[in-house]
Amino acid sequence: MQPKTIGVGMLGYAFMGKAHTNAYKKLPYIYYPPPAIPVLQGICGRNPKAVREAAERFGYRYGTTDWKRLIDDPQIELFDNNGPNNVHQDPCIAALEAGKHTLVEKPLAMDVSQARKMAAVAKEAAKQGIQSMVAFSNRFCPAVLLARRLIQEGKIGPIYHFRAAFLQDWLVDPNFPRAWRLQKEIAGSGVLGDLNAHSIDMARFLTGLEITEVCGVTQTFVAERPLPLEASGLSGKAGEKKGAVSVDDASLGMLRFNNGALGSIEASRFATGRKSLWQIEVYGRRGAVQFELTQNNLLQYFSLDDPLELQGFRTIPVTEADVHDFIKHWWPPGHMLGWEHHHCHAIFHLVNCIANKLTIAPWGATFEDGLKVQLVLDALQRSEKERGWVKVEQ
Amino acid sequence: MQPKTIGVGMLGYAFMGKAHTNAYKKLPYIYYPPPAIPVLQGICGRNPKAVREAAERFGYRYGTTDWKRLIDDPQIELFDNNGPNNVHQDPCIAALEAGKHTLVEKPLAMDVSQARKMAAVAKEAAKQGIQSMVAFSNRFCPAVLLARRLIQEGKIGPIYHFRAAFLQDWLVDPNFPRAWRLQKEIAGSGVLGDLNAHSIDMARFLTGLEITEVCGVTQTFVAERPLPLEASGLSGKAGEKKGAVSVDDASLGMLRFNNGALGSIEASRFATGRKSLWQIEVYGRRGAVQFELTQNNLLQYFSLDDPLELQGFRTIPVTEADVHDFIKHWWPPGHMLGWEHHHCHAIFHLVNCIANKLTIAPWGATFEDGLKVQLVLDALQRSEKERGWVKVEQ
Amino acid sequence: MQPKTIGVGMLGYAFMGKAHTNAYKKLPYIYYPPPAIPVLQGICGRNPKAVREAAERFGYRYGTTDWKRLIDDPQIELFDNNGPNNVHQDPCIAALEAGKHTLVEKPLAMDVSQARKMAAVAKEAAKQGIQSMVAFSNRFCPAVLLARRLIQEGKIGPIYHFRAAFLQDWLVDPNFPRAWRLQKEIAGSGVLGDLNAHSIDMARFLTGLEITEVCGVTQTFVAERPLPLEASGLSGKAGEKKGAVSVDDASLGMLRFNNGALGSIEASRFATGRKSLWQIEVYGRRGAVQFELTQNNLLQYFSLDDPLELQGFRTIPVTEADVHDFIKHWWPPGHMLGWEHHHCHAIFHLVNCIANKLTIAPWGATFEDGLKVQLVLDALQRSEKERGWVKVEQ
Amino acid sequence: MQPKTIGVGMLGYAFMGKAHTNAYKKLPYIYYPPPAIPVLQGICGRNPKAVREAAERFGYRYGTTDWKRLIDDPQIELFDNNGPNNVHQDPCIAALEAGKHTLVEKPLAMDVSQARKMAAVAKEAAKQGIQSMVAFSNRFCPAVLLARRLIQEGKIGPIYHFRAAFLQDWLVDPNFPRAWRLQKEIAGSGVLGDLNAHSIDMARFLTGLEITEVCGVTQTFVAERPLPLEASGLSGKAGEKKGAVSVDDASLGMLRFNNGALGSIEASRFATGRKSLWQIEVYGRRGAVQFELTQNNLLQYFSLDDPLELQGFRTIPVTEADVHDFIKHWWPPGHMLGWEHHHCHAIFHLVNCIANKLTIAPWGATFEDGLKVQLVLDALQRSEKERGWVKVEQ
Repeated sequence: MQPKTIGVGMLGYAFMGKAHTNAYKKLPYIYYPPPAIPVLQGICGRNPKAVREAAERFGYRYGTTDWKRLIDDPQIELFDNNGPNNVHQDPCIAALEAGKHTLVEKPLAMDVSQARKMAAVAKEAAKQGIQSMVAFSNRFCPAVLLARRLIQEGKIGPIYHFRAAFLQDWLVDPNFPRAWRLQKEIAGSGVLGDLNAHSIDMARFLTGLEITEVCGVTQTFVAERPLPLEASGLSGKAGEKKGAVSVDDASLGMLRFNNGALGSIEASRFATGRKSLWQIEVYGRRGAVQFELTQNNLLQYFSLDDPLELQGFRTIPVTEADVHDFIKHWWPPGHMLGWEHHHCHAIFHLVNCIANKLTIAPWGATFEDGLKVQLVLDALQRSEKERGWVKVEQ
Repeated sequence: MQPKTIGVGMLGYAFMGKAHTNAYKKLPYIYYPPPAIPVLQGICGRNPKAVREAAERFGYRYGTTDWKRLIDDPQIELFDNNGPNNVHQDPCIAALEAGKHTLVEKPLAMDVSQARKMAAVAKEAAKQGIQSMVAFSNRFCPAVLLARRLIQEGKIGPIYHFRAAFLQDWLVDPNFPRAWRLQKEIAGSGVLGDLNAHSIDMARFLTGLEITEVCGVTQTFVAERPLPLEASGLSGKAGEKKGAVSVDDASLGMLRFNNGALGSIEASRFATGRKSLWQIEVYGRRGAVQFELTQNNLLQYFSLDDPLELQGFRTIPVTEADVHDFIKHWWPPGHMLGWEHHHCHAIFHLVNCIANKLTIAPWGATFEDGLKVQLVLDALQRSEKERGWVKVEQ
Repeated sequence: MQPKTIGVGMLGYAFMGKAHTNAYKKLPYIYYPPPAIPVLQGICGRNPKAVREAAERFGYRYGTTDWKRLIDDPQIELFDNNGPNNVHQDPCIAALEAGKHTLVEKPLAMDVSQARKMAAVAKEAAKQGIQSMVAFSNRFCPAVLLARRLIQEGKIGPIYHFRAAFLQDWLVDPNFPRAWRLQKEIAGSGVLGDLNAHSIDMARFLTGLEITEVCGVTQTFVAERPLPLEASGLSGKAGEKKGAVSVDDASLGMLRFNNGALGSIEASRFATGRKSLWQIEVYGRRGAVQFELTQNNLLQYFSLDDPLELQGFRTIPVTEADVHDFIKHWWPPGHMLGWEHHHCHAIFHLVNCIANKLTIAPWGATFEDGLKVQLVLDALQRSEKERGWVKVEQ
Repeated sequence: MQPKTIGVGMLGYAFMGKAHTNAYKKLPYIYYPPPAIPVLQGICGRNPKAVREAAERFGYRYGTTDWKRLIDDPQIELFDNNGPNNVHQDPCIAALEAGKHTLVEKPLAMDVSQARKMAAVAKEAAKQGIQSMVAFSNRFCPAVLLARRLIQEGKIGPIYHFRAAFLQDWLVDPNFPRAWRLQKEIAGSGVLGDLNAHSIDMARFLTGLEITEVCGVTQTFVAERPLPLEASGLSGKAGEKKGAVSVDDASLGMLRFNNGALGSIEASRFATGRKSLWQIEVYGRRGAVQFELTQNNLLQYFSLDDPLELQGFRTIPVTEADVHDFIKHWWPPGHMLGWEHHHCHAIFHLVNCIANKLTIAPWGATFEDGLKVQLVLDALQRSEKERGWVKVEQ
């Protein structure tokens, strides 16, 4: 019997486009037998030469600079949107309305208004069996998969504290050029939407709680930077001219959850020495979990159920076959997964849900989840304007 | 020639009284030749039997339940106040006015009003050569000593971020009794004054910056607890009756410094699995430092001055003879100091300053420093009432 | 212009076969433009059903149970031998003599006699431009790539100590079945050839030194185990019957290098709690390096060139673009590679060397390197028999 | 009632003399009520000026350059021998024969012959109630105390592997002077007796097993060094003249235990970057423990009794009151002990055993234990000469 296939159309060909494409290409032989075999149909980007090269490199049937061509292509059943935040809304809505399953990079949208529209369209599409997911791929990190399971099983107990820090340092040099991520009209916000969005989603995903109130502040440490000589990517060289940085370099927030728990989140691109450290801690009545993204195979777990003199944070290598369905497909115990595998897991989950008509939640982030995150981001922005605590819209 | 001596009077005989007394007893043979030899004169506490036992145990000439006896004793030249926060003000002022050098445990006072009075009296006493210090003893942790030196030498550069988390878990059990630290009238506040006071002092000490604005929140997770069967200490057994907890179990704050840097502080007694973790991070234009109190001999240091491919946080064992004058008196390199040694360093510094007429600052915390911390604590409390950012009084 | 292709024939389809195949499949889009595009021609294994499934799963044109078919296939230009150690010699020699580039899993052979033959044939083939490599893929671990560079640049100085521990625990359970790796006639030896071979190769690769004398001992803790119900792989279930374990469970060795440095190696499958910990340390006159395989992106580096008070082991995240050519093709800094990527690097190196007529050494292990390792393994076995130090044949 | 006192006579006043004296001085107020109050009577050393200063500094009644004066002093009930290894035998035997309890620094003696004599005399003295102990003080490290308890309780199960590495770097500089520890006639051996003695004692102490066979090797990397300008201590400055180094700089050994377990030990003063790292690992059928001396409050523990998906090494902070009697006397949980506290524990144990007629073993090392270590050291030396495995004399 011939296995099912699923035609994929990709918007974006840089960092995330490469990570997602890699996942589609590995799916058929890693998760075996695969729920469906992805067929790479079309890829879209703004630079004609670059998109042509990407098509050839990754094996897409064609490249295009017009995302509507992907929407119009009947062979594309799954639309994967890795474009900058300002091209999330329209292509995703078009795709969903055209009956295409849709995956979109985080954050879902530029603002709440967009996110609401997108979630509504997704909800409508779902009635026709059209699936949609936001690529909060860190949910599929091995450590996170186990952390959530422990919390859901009650091993951590009622939660008191959620703590997250997402620290990078790529903007410490004031001559680093003003990449697209530093322009509000393209990125929507700075680390708020780029990094704290991850922490907010993780808070909800792990704890199952909702954030009800927030108080936040942001800072732009370097207000003006050299314009990059080339348009795309984050690594362009600096030119002579300067341009304004219109997003936040750092973002702090205090959170209150619906069970009374406290949360704190912090994100920065000025944390010198941290390439991409993302540390999460959850403390509850019976135990605690902690992990860090660059140690993605390791979960720290503490349990008050242990005898007193044996209590301590244990470092669990989450590479055992039976910890989670996403992991057993890889290698024998002790062989570590890398960052790319989170995306492989996420895309396997999506394709599996599509092929077998399973529900994206709770492992995958729905557009509704994306909206929830956007509501918290929005509350953090309102909070800053009002210089105080604000309620999160529900 | 007979070495100088200095008569010591001690208020308090439990945890901190023991830690300070230990420091006085070790000073003459560890720091050799000693600046002066402490002579333990009198010790004071509320429980007559316990204070008598403490006097005998530690070698004080006498025990008393009346702190005024210490003030009136002409043989006492240094008054060391380890009492609960509600007995800081009056005894310290009395001691200073009686011409006694004065050391007081942190936080300096119950509130800003007390702290202002105490700082004013200390300033006046200083004119007569009377020294005073607040026992922010963690300033004398090996890792901190080096961290401050690196920052002061400019190795970290202008600072962007200060981050502190002080996490404990001794209140997670709802049946843990309501110790004195949980009563506002004795403790003044909960983790705010107990733990975040440390972080605030450390922020100022390390960076040399002032905190100008804050926004904070606290939480009391367990509002009522069994009353302890015995009066003193933190380890009494729970009785039948219950009493209200009138202080905070957890305290979060966002800070802004006078150079535009952001700070975040978090303290809790509900961080399951953390016995007493105190983690500090400072990120600047040229580098970063990080340390954790239970790894007190180790400083994490990152430098952008290293060649790019060799950059990484290095773990510096701060046990080398030449790192700091406080450390060379102990053991050869590689032999670790413990928590008690921070107090030994602090008290050596104080006695040395007294004996040799040196200035307490910058290594020791003056009452003026204590007041500055109190002003930030006060701002955090006001911020919570106003549910937003407030300016720190200067 | 059409890119070059290279036809691949694979012997083995389980753990290593999957890891290598994954590398061939990723090469064309990760290393772009690729030196040549691997075309998966044939795959061979003993179980007809399993090999058919493997062919389908991984996209090989055909499956076969006869490795000679791969040798006879003119479309196969690169023969990749992942079979058990007892099928290394004949197929590799046949492939090389048939003019096929050859990659073989480590250790090179069952014994020195085989290894000598293979190295001789490889040397002869090289004259015709036929490349050969032993898959000591851990050489391509990010941390190792940097470690070697630092040592070669003289940053560690003349070397005093090499230390290696390769610890696993999958045999602690006495009812774990007697897999093929526990049979001497198939595996040649136990952890000696499986794990200590890695450490010996790493010693030579990192330091550039030769091992001149050794003294070793091995132990088989469980002499008899249940026979597995199924023939292949390491994870078969235990049956009723028992069979003898004819290889070592643990292997220790002391080494002396040609510069007088000392080495110690230890490997075990009875190190409870260690899934696959491989720790390497090198100490020299100017500095030291350390890494651990499950932290493969991190190199610990200590330098006496640092100012005394700033000396400490620094943790270098080896994900920066400029550290090594193998890494820049992946993701931005801070995004971790996993275990599989070592194999990707190794196979990229091999294909690149083939396509561009570059030399396998020093980054890749030649058959001559494989022979050198085998000579040390042999010396360790002789040492055990003689209960003392023996010279390594050169 | 007046507490008992115990008169102490000390041989040696440098590093260890200071560490032991500190322990005697802290005993009366830390372990309260104390089993007996040490009274510092006499201290002895070779340099008249230095010994006079030491007496004054530490509060000994007198200083002397003649150790026989200590033996003759009827007020001295406990003789503490911290002298170099070449002055262990005669003073200890004299003290024991004079009816004085005796503590001696490790290793017990210069060689087996001395050790046998000393153990015999100690055995005889014990019949008169005279206690003796070898100061293997690391037995009293918090992590070790818990490790031993877990092993003795069976939580680790039958043992397969013991691994120890004791790494220092103070000799890497070839111009570091030839201190007394580098002269065979004073030190007996180099790291063999200085560091590997610790590892051998720890192996026996933790596992309760005996070492039956060994194979060892040593190396002297720098054969000649500048003579120090001053006689005493390890930190003298280098002079012009050179002298031969007559002890080992590094020492490796492979061990076999009486249950079939394997051991490996390694010690060096040329492990660049390691100030004093002492790492111990024990692997058994049910679990494993690991600790490192500079993290002396933390024990790593792995248990196969945990559910499979929760298995991992846990980091136990050994500061809880109930873990061991030696620790509860100090501070509340989470307040770390340093290196000096191991000596405090050891000396408390000794004084307690003397005062209350308890047995030194199993926590303290008897002279019989000291002899057992010496027999293994001796076997390692014989093994090197014979270039192979030798049996340990029993």
